[in-house]
Amino acid sequence: MTTIWQRRYAQRMNMMGSSVIRELLKLTQQPDLISFAGGLPAPELFPIEKCDEAAQRVIQEHGAEALQYSTTEGFLPLRQFIAQQMAVDGIELAPENILVTNGAQQALDLVGKIMINPGDLILTEQPTYLGALQAWRAYEADFISVPTDEDGILIGPELEKALQAGPKFMYILPNFQNPSGVMLSLERRKKLVEIADHYGVPIIEDDPYSKLRYEGEHLPSLLALDAERQKEKQDHNNGSTGHSQGNVIYMGTFSKTFGPGLRLGWIAAPTEVVRHCVMAKQGTDLHTSTYAQMLLYEVAKDGFLDEHKKVIQKTYKERRDIMEATLEEYAPPGVTWARPKGGLFFWVRIPEHLNAKDVLTAAIANKVAFVPGEAFYA
Amino acid sequence: MTTIWQRRYAQRMNMMGSSVIRELLKLTQQPDLISFAGGLPAPELFPIEKCDEAAQRVIQEHGAEALQYSTTEGFLPLRQFIAQQMAVDGIELAPENILVTNGAQQALDLVGKIMINPGDLILTEQPTYLGALQAWRAYEADFISVPTDEDGILIGPELEKALQAGPKFMYILPNFQNPSGVMLSLERRKKLVEIADHYGVPIIEDDPYSKLRYEGEHLPSLLALDAERQKEKQDHNNGSTGHSQGNVIYMGTFSKTFGPGLRLGWIAAPTEVVRHCVMAKQGTDLHTSTYAQMLLYEVAKDGFLDEHKKVIQKTYKERRDIMEATLEEYAPPGVTWARPKGGLFFWVRIPEHLNAKDVLTAAIANKVAFVPGEAFYA
Repeated sequence: MTTIWQRRYAQRMNMMGSSVIRELLKLTQQPDLISFAGGLPAPELFPIEKCDEAAQRVIQEHGAEALQYSTTEGFLPLRQFIAQQMAVDGIELAPENILVTNGAQQALDLVGKIMINPGDLILTEQPTYLGALQAWRAYEADFISVPTDEDGILIGPELEKALQAGPKFMYILPNFQNPSGVMLSLERRKKLVEIADHYGVPIIEDDPYSKLRYEGEHLPSLLALDAERQKEKQDHNNGSTGHSQGNVIYMGTFSKTFGPGLRLGWIAAPTEVVRHCVMAKQGTDLHTSTYAQMLLYEVAKDGFLDEHKKVIQKTYKERRDIMEATLEEYAPPGVTWARPKGGLFFWVRIPEHLNAKDVLTAAIANKVAFVPGEAFYA
Repeated sequence: MTTIWQRRYAQRMNMMGSSVIRELLKLTQQPDLISFAGGLPAPELFPIEKCDEAAQRVIQEHGAEALQYSTTEGFLPLRQFIAQQMAVDGIELAPENILVTNGAQQALDLVGKIMINPGDLILTEQPTYLGALQAWRAYEADFISVPTDEDGILIGPELEKALQAGPKFMYILPNFQNPSGVMLSLERRKKLVEIADHYGVPIIEDDPYSKLRYEGEHLPSLLALDAERQKEKQDHNNGSTGHSQGNVIYMGTFSKTFGPGLRLGWIAAPTEVVRHCVMAKQGTDLHTSTYAQMLLYEVAKDGFLDEHKKVIQKTYKERRDIMEATLEEYAPPGVTWARPKGGLFFWVRIPEHLNAKDVLTAAIANKVAFVPGEAFYA
């Protein structure tokens, strides 16, 4: 039956048919299903007691402020805190470089809103995070993807060719990538920043997982490496100081180190990019929950999340090891994987004669869920 | 200095230059300024104690759920509660008719996202809420506006002409309109629903203020009047039951009856429209804060907001009366206004030889702020 509405939807809705994440989140609500689908943090590790104390302090001492409207940019002490946290990579950020968002998913949406015209090309890793594809399909983007190996995106002729096609930006998850679990090597990080600058193609760096590292060393963000590079260039030109000329938009989140239920993430970027995101966010939802921001700040301000991170790392590492040991014991011949050094994802390859969707159907019949790889290909 | 970014922004950013609300919200953070700019609820009336109790119950009893991801549609008990609340207007809604949003501003954004193609015409009242103009300019909408008087939008030749121009939808604030304070009469509500149906033009009904009524009677929503009309039509055709065939998208909010700092609003609409909004929201920010939704539900579930509403109404009515008495005493000749029967807004007309922006400059010099009317004209 045709309704009045069907003639009224915008053209972009044609791009938004599927809703894989949504179906996944629904699956996880069936209590008797073991779900490996979706990067849900372990709820038994949520710092409930700390959260309870913080909530009482915020409401009892700052209730009128917490329940009131606030500015689009975000709660200033939280923005200062985020800027300080990011200084570990050697980058100097001011609150003007930080916008608080409703989780990193809104950061993806806002970047789409300020940058993508219909038909614009976006360069992604292959495979890549399906939530980004979903966010940007709403702005009628096209995608071009570049293969990856166990050190991340391949810096070579395929990347050069993709860059020559004139993408609006490239989208990179450098740490324990969703879905491949791969970490981008330091050498490639440096090269990527250089090549992006050379082609004048900005980098969107999505980094939800860097704190979930179980082995190996922390590597600097693309944002920081680019800032260093820009600074050198500016020094040659006697340029100004501060983070105003960078080529990278960084996206972070508290979903994995605290809990996703508050919906708190952020954008760190050159001042003028943040200003544009603020303009877009203002019409989108005015601002992120004042109360949620104050609560998170109250939890985090004294370094609690650095301590809490260790608990998370220990438990998640154990679970990764159990997953690998189980795969080693039970996976049939022809099934392969690379052990992720951090994050939440095992990328498992099955023999070519099998279709992952058929395997999923069989798995769900046995009350187990995973995401077929196809969803991560643009 | 041209940066790499200036060549990279989307075309829609050209429509998003001004950011009046944002500047207003900033003004209100100067503690020594008396601001009549912006519909900020009185923070001294926020139910802090109730909120504190509710927060403790949610965190202590359901902390793991409150801090976890949840579904895009929203927290089911809250959606059921909203559907029940709206039944007072005689409309039968199921949870499938409700989507929880980050305040009503996100409802405006999502409707823009699912419906507006660049160049689409939107019919608005004149004047109208500037946040809606801002939300929809981001989707490159054009606007056509229809004059209003003390009973709301004029049902007459100008409306007919605007409808004949083929707008994508019309945007109506029927209760204590922002900014005019006007209430749409029952007769016009019925006519508007009829004429919208006749022209096949959907109505977006924005209703943040209906609970802030200081005199007069509650009038049914356009959503309810339209549902009644659709039902009569269906009965003639032996059609199906439930709210699936309506012509109205309703937007509500808890910002004025509880507090805006949680960012909680909702869309109530035919099932298929809600489904499309859910698709759009999923890519936009996955879902609204689980914790904020559970907290609001805990506060509201036993009817607390109905009691609390009385406190708000009493205080706001006193303030409205003081504002009117003060205007009567001090306003120079040629300044006119209509006393609003509810809501947060006084629409004051000044003599034609004065420019409201000049008056604002003088007012700010005296530490008083208001919004010049021009911002509310498309």
